[in-house]
This record gives sequence, C-alpha cells and structure tokens, in this order.
Amino acid sequence: MKAMVFHEPGRAAWESVRDPDIQDSQDVVVRVETTTICGTDLHILSGDVPGVVPGTVLGHEAVGEVVEAGRDVRTVRPGDRVLVSCITACGRCRFCRQGVYGQCRGGGGWRLGNSIDGTQAEYVRVPFADHSVHLLPGGVESEDAVLFADIYPTGYEVGVLNGQVQPGDTVVVVGAGPVGLAAIATARLYSPDRVVAVDLTTGRLEAAGRFGADARVLASDEPEQLVEDLTEGLGADVTIEAVGAPETFEMCTRMVRPGGHVANIGVHGRPAELHLETLWTKDLTIRTGLVDTSSTPMLLSMLAAGRLPTSSLVTHVFELGAAEEAYEVFAGAAETGALKVALKGQQIYRADSSSLVTVAGSGTAAS
Amino acid sequence: MKAMVFHEPGRAAWESVRDPDIQDSQDVVVRVETTTICGTDLHILSGDVPGVVPGTVLGHEAVGEVVEAGRDVRTVRPGDRVLVSCITACGRCRFCRQGVYGQCRGGGGWRLGNSIDGTQAEYVRVPFADHSVHLLPGGVESEDAVLFADIYPTGYEVGVLNGQVQPGDTVVVVGAGPVGLAAIATARLYSPDRVVAVDLTTGRLEAAGRFGADARVLASDEPEQLVEDLTEGLGADVTIEAVGAPETFEMCTRMVRPGGHVANIGVHGRPAELHLETLWTKDLTIRTGLVDTSSTPMLLSMLAAGRLPTSSLVTHVFELGAAEEAYEVFAGAAETGALKVALKGQQIYRADSSSLVTVAGSGTAAS
Repeated sequence: MKAMVFHEPGRAAWESVRDPDIQDSQDVVVRVETTTICGTDLHILSGDVPGVVPGTVLGHEAVGEVVEAGRDVRTVRPGDRVLVSCITACGRCRFCRQGVYGQCRGGGGWRLGNSIDGTQAEYVRVPFADHSVHLLPGGVESEDAVLFADIYPTGYEVGVLNGQVQPGDTVVVVGAGPVGLAAIATARLYSPDRVVAVDLTTGRLEAAGRFGADARVLASDEPEQLVEDLTEGLGADVTIEAVGAPETFEMCTRMVRPGGHVANIGVHGRPAELHLETLWTKDLTIRTGLVDTSSTPMLLSMLAAGRLPTSSLVTHVFELGAAEEAYEVFAGAAETGALKVALKGQQIYRADSSSLVTVAGSGTAAS
Repeated sequence: MKAMVFHEPGRAAWESVRDPDIQDSQDVVVRVETTTICGTDLHILSGDVPGVVPGTVLGHEAVGEVVEAGRDVRTVRPGDRVLVSCITACGRCRFCRQGVYGQCRGGGGWRLGNSIDGTQAEYVRVPFADHSVHLLPGGVESEDAVLFADIYPTGYEVGVLNGQVQPGDTVVVVGAGPVGLAAIATARLYSPDRVVAVDLTTGRLEAAGRFGADARVLASDEPEQLVEDLTEGLGADVTIEAVGAPETFEMCTRMVRPGGHVANIGVHGRPAELHLETLWTKDLTIRTGLVDTSSTPMLLSMLAAGRLPTSSLVTHVFELGAAEEAYEVFAGAAETGALKVALKGQQIYRADSSSLVTVAGSGTAAS
C-alpha cells in the first residue's frame, strides 16, 4: 500500500510501504476512507516530538471500514464503518479503569502516527480495537466524523471539562484553530454567559463566530482589556489555551479571575513562566492534559443528532495520493486559510455520495 | 497600648500606638492572650509584600478575649474567648457565598497585619466579627488554638484539599515548616498510603515524623529518586509545595505522577518555570490558593477531640513585650530550631494555668 512516511524533521513522503496485518488478537485493520492532518503532525515534522522514529507512517485520525479483525475483537467486525480514535487503550490498566485512556500503561495511549504506524495511509492497523475504534452512526459524513477522532474530544475534554465550564461563565478561548473551535462549540453545551475568542487572524475569528463565540478579538487588539471590561475587572471564569506558546499560556493566567480555571490544550515546545509571585494568592486551577477520548461516544451521538457544528472546519479536501500537497496547504494556513484538511481514500458508502465534495489531486476547497 | 509596628523593610518595633476601638457595628475588639509570628511576617519585613503601609501593626493570628462588640455582632459577646482568624470576611459577596473567604470582595480577605492593624498587640480590632472570629471550645490551650488562625487551615485547605488527597495516595510535602507540618497531619485524615516529607534540616524532618510523615528525606539526599522508587517509577499522587521557591515548586511538578495534583502553599516572590514542553501531556492539576479558613470550625472540633497534633509546633514562648527578640529567634530558625514562636499577653483563664509554660522576657523554649 501507500502511506505518508516520516523520514526526518522537515521530510515526509507519500510512498510504498508494507501492508499492515493483524499482529495481536485484539487488532483490527481498517481501510481508510478519510483521514486528516493535525497540528501535532506539523510538530513532528518540525522535530518537536523526538520520540517519533524515522519510517513511521503519520496520522492519528481516520474514518474507515474494518477489513480484518483479530479473534478477540467483540465490538466491530469486517464491513463495519468506524471512527479510528487518536487514542488506543488497553482497557485494563489503572488509568484505563478510570477512563484516563490517554495515560494508558498497558500499551495504549497516543500510539498511532507516533510510536506505531498511523492513519495517513490506505490501510491502518489499530490495536485494542474494542477500546480504540467506534462504530459510526448511520448517515454521518466522513468529513464530519473524522473531527471526532481527536479535535472534538480534545476541545471538550482538555478544554471544557478540564476548565470546568459552568452555566453563566465567561469563557475565553485563545487560539481559534480546529481544537479551539471545538472548545468553543462544546463550551456552549454548558450555557456560559459568553465565549470570547482570541486569535491572530480575522478568518479564524469568523469561524469562531460560526462555532459559537459571542465576542471575537484579534490578539493585537488588547484582548486582556476587553476581558477586563466584560467582567467588571474581575477576569474570566475559564481561560483555554489552544495555541501552544508560552506567551498565550501566560496571557491565560492573567485573564482568569481569582478562583478561576486555566485549561491548557496547546502542544508546547518550550517552558512558560508561571508568575507565582502574583498567582500564589489567586486560587487558580491550572490543568494540562492529553485527550482520553472517553467522551467520544457521547460526542458522536450529539453529532448524529445535529447538535454540534462541523462542516465549516474542513476547508480543503484532497485525495490520499496528494498527501504531500495537503501538508503544504495545511502548513501554510496563514496564506491558504486552511482550518482542517481532509484526505480521502477509497469511498465506501456510495449511497450518500451526492453530498461528497468532488476530490481532485490539486485540492478543492470545500464550500 | 503597645504593638509591633512595621516601619519599613528591615525595621519593625514594639512601641506605643493608639488603642483600637469599634469603627463599624460588625467589629469586635479583642484583648490578645496569645499571638504568633508567621513566615509571611518575615516576607513583609523583607519587602516582599509591598502593599503593607508603614505604621501598620503586624500579625494575623491570635487567641484572646472579646472586650467590646459592635451592636450588629451576633455570635460573640464581651468576655468570650475567641480565635481570631487570619482571614476576615464580609459574608455577603459572591466569593463569601461560596465559602471562598480569602477572595472576599466586600472588605474582607487577608487584612489583619496587612491592610489594617494586626494581632501582635495588646488589643486588636477585628472587622466582620461574625465571619472572622470563632468561639473557642473549653479547655483548649491558647498555644494550640493559635495554630488554627492560619497554619492548620492553610495546610489543610491549600495543601490537602486543593491537592485532593485520597485514600491510598502517596503524598509528598516539600517543606516541613509549620504549614508543611499541618499539611502532613491533615493529609493523614484521608488515609493516604504514605506521606513523604522533604526538608533541608533534620530537625524539621524529626517534627515531620511526629506529625505523621512515614518517610523523611533531606533535600540533599535525592528525594526525587526516593519518590520514584516508592511509586515504581510512576510519581506521587499529590505533591504539596510548602516552601515558596521556584526550585521546590518545579521539583513538585517533576515528582507528581501523570494525572496527579500539585498544590502550592508557598508564598512566592519570584516566578517559576512551568515545563509545559513535558507537562502538556501529563494531565496535571496545579492549584494555588490563599486560605479561606472555611474549615476552621471543623478543625477546632478535631483539636478539642484530641485528633490533631499541635504542641510540638510551638518551640519558643515570649511575653508580648519581647516581640522584637521573638522576631530574631524566629528569623534565625536555622540556628534556633524555631518552628512556631508564641507571644503571650495578659492571660485570661487562670484555672488552666498549671499547664502554661512559664514566660520570660528572654524567651523560654517550650518543652
């Protein structure tokens, strides 16, 4: 088969690799219908995730069809259309028993496209299938469903749940990329008073509006002053960092009120300054976290019920074979306006294909 | 009357000041039976708390007798023996309604010995008496009770509750000063598997043993390796910072397990580095906080029931008039071995006096 292979920082290529097969009785092999590129993949390419070994197939998000299942897999079978979660989980270790699958000690965790071959391929082996793939509700588009492999559970679990958003809250989301937008949309499930989006670009702030942000402010337009004015000087109840930079993290610790919550979603490559000389009396709760995807079944139900915005997130669609070009478009988001780039393999459900965006090697902007 | 007055960084003096009186109908005036010196007072003297105005009487911990009460005070009356809490609280603002008295927006918070005259004096005015003083159970020694003005609720609320100590946990307390010792003692209320104390001196580690630490390790003896060995490489469930230095805070973020809690008690004068490049995936919860003293009634009940260790905390006893000497002994704790220094004014309950330590201007070590 062909796949997007990481070679070294700065270099990955779409090339031939060995077909995956069942290695453990809990594995499945999935034919990839739709996958996507995550900001984390760019971090790998820039050398920020040094654990990724050259030769690894990239990608940790996919929708596809089970083509083979190990003999101990109970919840899916060949022919099933599934979501491949970014987190795989043994289901038995002390962390899995608490639903903390991201910290799995039994061989799961964030493995796909990290320590084992990932989803940017024609086929992918998924370990611990019963805890790592989800049967998709009928009628769900793959460009929508693929957002639930990582983006939506991350925005919800690491942003909204870790931030403990409550009714009546003022919530500030710094960074309106895909995960920030998912945090905005899922924060609304808790009926906050207002959600404020902060970003560098007007394009992403427009998307933030479509995902439910009441107030939108450019990082250059004094967001801290806006939050102060909106909260009578007190600060936001919850601030969510969805960028991954020391500056934005520190901004979040300044904009939050006494007794408030700071939830860090961002993937960081450098330390931040924690200003304990002012924060020690501020009753802050700061959370960091890897997604567990324990919320994925609930979020998929809400997707099927039409209660979560999705489609405007996928701005570009490519064939799988155009993965290299797709990376360029995604990495150049400042110019291309890319939010989420879908890569499409062989389609499975032709019955629904009238709503599929026509794909082409040159990439077609989804409308 | 006479009181310990802050003049400028490096200078405070025991001198004559105007007697306090009732300024608001919710005030009481308390004759000080016992007060004490807090590490925070030393921070004020070293210039770390710039908001303290020259001329302010220091001190925020006391036991004494109500000698005058404003007409709206309902819970105590003249003649009552009370604990003066370090936190005063209006009881009506949004924070007080949630028991978050330390963040009171209605004129309370940490005010005594900070923004109004404090307890290191013959008499002290206490605002919002109904929310700021506690009637003492009978038979409680003042050297014990005074530890519940700040030390015990701080160790418990900011250390143990914020750290979410649970049965079976491994808890590490870095810093075995008075508040660290109170955190150790109150962590035991939750039946942890073990409490590890880390400090610079063997004297404080011995005290940690008396307060309930199972393992004690000098900071110079590789405490991180010990914690790793004790937890099979996973890290502690809860780490509590009770020093107030960047190095010890950062140590706490390294020693905690994935999904664990870091509770900061320390008063900090400088920022710490938060190593988000490793911590972003670690599911950490970091808490900072000022004490609320919402737990004081419960803790006083446990004191009266003999369920909390206290007496070995007061290592030195002085007459109030020897306050300057007491400050020298407390500031020189490395040489004097001082943990907590009690300053005693006019005694009230002579019936119990057989158990009182004889006091002298030159200071007598409590045995």
